[in-house]
Amino acid sequence: MPLISTKGNLMPESPIRKLVPYAENAKKRGTKVYHLNIGQPDIKTPQVALDAIKNNTIEVLSYARSEGSEEYRTKLANYYATNNISVSPNDIVATTGGSEALLFTIGSITDPGDEIIIPEPFYANYNGFSTASGITVVPVISGIDDNFALPKIEDFEKLITDKTKAILICNPGNPTGYLYSKEEIQKLKQIVLKHDLFLIADEVYREFVYDGLEHHSIMSEDGLDQHAIMIDSVSKRYSMCGARIGCIVSRNEEFIATAIKFAQARLSPPTYALLASEAALETPQSYFDDVIEEYVERRNTLISELQKVDGVKVASPKGAFYCVVQLPVKDTDDFAQWMLEKFDLNGETVMVAPASGFYSTPGEGKNQVRIAYVLNKTDLKKSVEVIAAALKQYNS
Amino acid sequence: MPLISTKGNLMPESPIRKLVPYAENAKKRGTKVYHLNIGQPDIKTPQVALDAIKNNTIEVLSYARSEGSEEYRTKLANYYATNNISVSPNDIVATTGGSEALLFTIGSITDPGDEIIIPEPFYANYNGFSTASGITVVPVISGIDDNFALPKIEDFEKLITDKTKAILICNPGNPTGYLYSKEEIQKLKQIVLKHDLFLIADEVYREFVYDGLEHHSIMSEDGLDQHAIMIDSVSKRYSMCGARIGCIVSRNEEFIATAIKFAQARLSPPTYALLASEAALETPQSYFDDVIEEYVERRNTLISELQKVDGVKVASPKGAFYCVVQLPVKDTDDFAQWMLEKFDLNGETVMVAPASGFYSTPGEGKNQVRIAYVLNKTDLKKSVEVIAAALKQYNS
Repeated sequence: MPLISTKGNLMPESPIRKLVPYAENAKKRGTKVYHLNIGQPDIKTPQVALDAIKNNTIEVLSYARSEGSEEYRTKLANYYATNNISVSPNDIVATTGGSEALLFTIGSITDPGDEIIIPEPFYANYNGFSTASGITVVPVISGIDDNFALPKIEDFEKLITDKTKAILICNPGNPTGYLYSKEEIQKLKQIVLKHDLFLIADEVYREFVYDGLEHHSIMSEDGLDQHAIMIDSVSKRYSMCGARIGCIVSRNEEFIATAIKFAQARLSPPTYALLASEAALETPQSYFDDVIEEYVERRNTLISELQKVDGVKVASPKGAFYCVVQLPVKDTDDFAQWMLEKFDLNGETVMVAPASGFYSTPGEGKNQVRIAYVLNKTDLKKSVEVIAAALKQYNS
Repeated sequence: MPLISTKGNLMPESPIRKLVPYAENAKKRGTKVYHLNIGQPDIKTPQVALDAIKNNTIEVLSYARSEGSEEYRTKLANYYATNNISVSPNDIVATTGGSEALLFTIGSITDPGDEIIIPEPFYANYNGFSTASGITVVPVISGIDDNFALPKIEDFEKLITDKTKAILICNPGNPTGYLYSKEEIQKLKQIVLKHDLFLIADEVYREFVYDGLEHHSIMSEDGLDQHAIMIDSVSKRYSMCGARIGCIVSRNEEFIATAIKFAQARLSPPTYALLASEAALETPQSYFDDVIEEYVERRNTLISELQKVDGVKVASPKGAFYCVVQLPVKDTDDFAQWMLEKFDLNGETVMVAPASGFYSTPGEGKNQVRIAYVLNKTDLKKSVEVIAAALKQYNS
């Protein structure tokens, strides 16, 4: 029997995947499961995007242009302009989700054995993309006591080697909800300019910024044209996770030309989804206002309820729709499984994402979980009640 | 300025891409360009698939399951059963096009530096996927004089090293249109069993088989369960190239489990396209009968017209919708560009794909082009008239 590759064996499983059978069994027992584990919002996709698909007149479902049509990229550039990001259509490559944007970026700037520094905890699939590309994630730990702020410059600099090709941030952050300040973005700029690195920012949660704060894109910083690479996606912005349309944005022409070669090899992003994504750019501001209001209320509800629970520590998220919560248990992988397998409160339980999957440093995050506030306030309240009762029983 | 990766620099450009500006300029001059260069059929997508999208009731465009829903994979398994391929839904991983199916396969069975043997000429993007994965394509040359039949077993065996992980075929072949016989598939089986290799077959043109011949899938061969990996796609079968839905099929459980880890990292195939692909499985047989009849007539027209042209040699394709044509010129890259840049016959010219991009052996295929018979018969006849006149003028 021929062998699976070393890379294939090293590919991480999704940190939630192993819990799925336990959740399914709980449902079979008649237990209601609140899903706080996923980044799939319950928010309706903008009507203008749904209508574009229902009213489409495609007769031959053809390939789209590998990097996306000129028209779509022009409209995208206009959208970015309204977000204080001035780019041309030629600075944009449409991709199949933010996932592919990151894969093409890693392929364009790294060779196997190279390193990318990422503040930890980070989006779990960064591990998968790195393993698939044969590169190493070098984590720099940010802590819950600092609210997951950017680690000190010295912490980055002592990790830079001749293999380091880039620093990657997610802003606002998944799983932390942390929003980097302008000053923090400028600190990163100093480092990448000094050490001649790329600065990659995953900005797919750009719209989800709360408390009157402003999002500072790396694309809005002067002097970073050759260094800045932005990853984007329609998934969260328009609650269109299933579209699988993202993009790469950079003013570095050589980098964009390289990314397009990767895009050509896979021919085309999905055509129907491009149609929906182009239409979604016409989404009225009122849609976002409503969504943001809803998320702020959900966040406030979740955080204030969690803070009432003994032994629970929670960082204060300023963006996205996640938070990292420290629980008074030793091993949240075990606790999360136990909640699904052996616990219920009046026939209800909760599925959370154990945070160890969001760290690459072994042993880190073992007493943390990520909670996505993608449910309505009533369900969020009930979920925290379940967690509180579960903690009491689990620890007794 | 930070550096592009070695891999990024090595990524090949699409062999057609460099001709695109010349085609655009020709159109600006008012010249009509017949596109024989692409694999985008003009055939209408089945109505049942188009209707499924127009009548969809999605309100939140959510992620699909990473490997495709159980329901879709069950229906796919039923479709395969009618094609003499007996597999279970768990042997299938839905992917974003055949492209991703091949990328996940390469990732699962090779590490950088490994080798895959491919009969040459081959689908140009195999080069791109290999470069992106850091592996080496080892070509074994098949010749136009043999109609691009499978090279001798000895030719394969002398190329096998301890780095060889798989043999990859495309059946029926792009760009050759060659259909492997049952005996040829069995020869490949002997080699992969003897040397413990994977046998990957790209069977996306399964339906396009002519002259009463039958397609022999590697999945229909006994004793290959641990070795056979089939790549498939809805793109050509249903003229749905823009859907970007493909799949991996294998009875090797360890391999499938590994491929699913790659699928999880990118979250989901495109949801709308999955809906269309599931509906397309209800396409009536009459659709395929009509399409096959049309392609046979196109092929017959193209081949008989080409055979009338002095100095032209053409292999006889038995499947897919391509053929490789040898022209009486030294450099078809130059000739193809010249036809677009400097030639027209009564205001019309032709775009073909120079064949050098379908070879990895330097210098091979320089006097060949790939012609896709994706146009109607009248246009194909006119196209060959243009080529004949162009050859006369180019060679004088």
